[in-house]
Amino acid sequence: MISFPPSLDRLIQLFGTLPGIGRKSATRIVLKLVESSEAECRDLASSILEARQRTRKCSLCGGLTEDDPCPVCTDPRRDERLVCVVERPSDILALERTGRYNGRYHVLDGLLSPLDGVGPDELRIDRLVDRAGEGRLREIILALNPTAEGEATALYLGKLLAPKGVRVSRLASGLPVGGDLDLADELTLGTALDERREL
Amino acid sequence: MISFPPSLDRLIQLFGTLPGIGRKSATRIVLKLVESSEAECRDLASSILEARQRTRKCSLCGGLTEDDPCPVCTDPRRDERLVCVVERPSDILALERTGRYNGRYHVLDGLLSPLDGVGPDELRIDRLVDRAGEGRLREIILALNPTAEGEATALYLGKLLAPKGVRVSRLASGLPVGGDLDLADELTLGTALDERREL
Repeated sequence: MISFPPSLDRLIQLFGTLPGIGRKSATRIVLKLVESSEAECRDLASSILEARQRTRKCSLCGGLTEDDPCPVCTDPRRDERLVCVVERPSDILALERTGRYNGRYHVLDGLLSPLDGVGPDELRIDRLVDRAGEGRLREIILALNPTAEGEATALYLGKLLAPKGVRVSRLASGLPVGGDLDLADELTLGTALDERREL
Repeated sequence: MISFPPSLDRLIQLFGTLPGIGRKSATRIVLKLVESSEAECRDLASSILEARQRTRKCSLCGGLTEDDPCPVCTDPRRDERLVCVVERPSDILALERTGRYNGRYHVLDGLLSPLDGVGPDELRIDRLVDRAGEGRLREIILALNPTAEGEATALYLGKLLAPKGVRVSRLASGLPVGGDLDLADELTLGTALDERREL
């Protein structure tokens, strides 16, 4: 029984370690790559290196940026008294797409998850507490996933931030806008009921 | 509204052009890449270039190989009087995994598809007809997908190869082994019925 040439096998293996790519997708991708022009492969290879070398984490908010501090942290038109806490840099983009937020951000780089060995020391929490303690913040919005880890992290941060005298809020949970009540799971519908608002 | 740094955006765009990867998966992959070590990125980049540069098509069968002719075409233990015709190089591996085939291969590099502008001239058909005409082949097995394009290509090849005096066969169509009769579509079940075998 024969197999792919070693250089292909190796590349398929590497692609297979990327998130969301299994052995089959990796094979399809690699076959496409070796059939494309050498210039295209060179372009992809150099873009990978360039992105890795140019991108760093903003020393203030932890978001991904080519300039440190990042454009959000240095933009004078954004409300510096408002900080939105997110799990990952990509969450910043999701919030920006809403067009409803004009403050700064703080990336935790994860959520508390004792079973996976992620405790408070593994997250960017100290810097957030420092920011809260400087007395210039008006509100900290915890924009964490409504999952067990997200809830646990929010509770932990809430306790930690309470003595700082800053208002701490969470994103609302409830029915997705445009969604179907009939299709919502019991937990979501239950939360929507518990947290109903006056009309 | 801010977005990802330009070098990330460019890489997300490039990954988004690979088969089976949309904008969301591309973003996940790129975020993972810029968070991995520079050595890992360098490894991936150089493996892409290496695979592209080392891999070529075997001048005999059209399969992917680092040495030309490929190991299958030069292996004296394989039956050179048997040729299995496949659409793509990856189909060779699928057949090898069965462990039931010990002949040579011929890659067409596609299937006839007039609507997509793929005619006989776009496929590696001449070389197959030459091989059939050399008078050394015992059988040509058409291992093409049981789709409209696969059937059309098989019929076309059948006509072309008929005058060469070589036996031409097709893969059997029918119920997948271990599958459920109840779940088979009408076409598959109908074919299984039409092509039933004596017990």
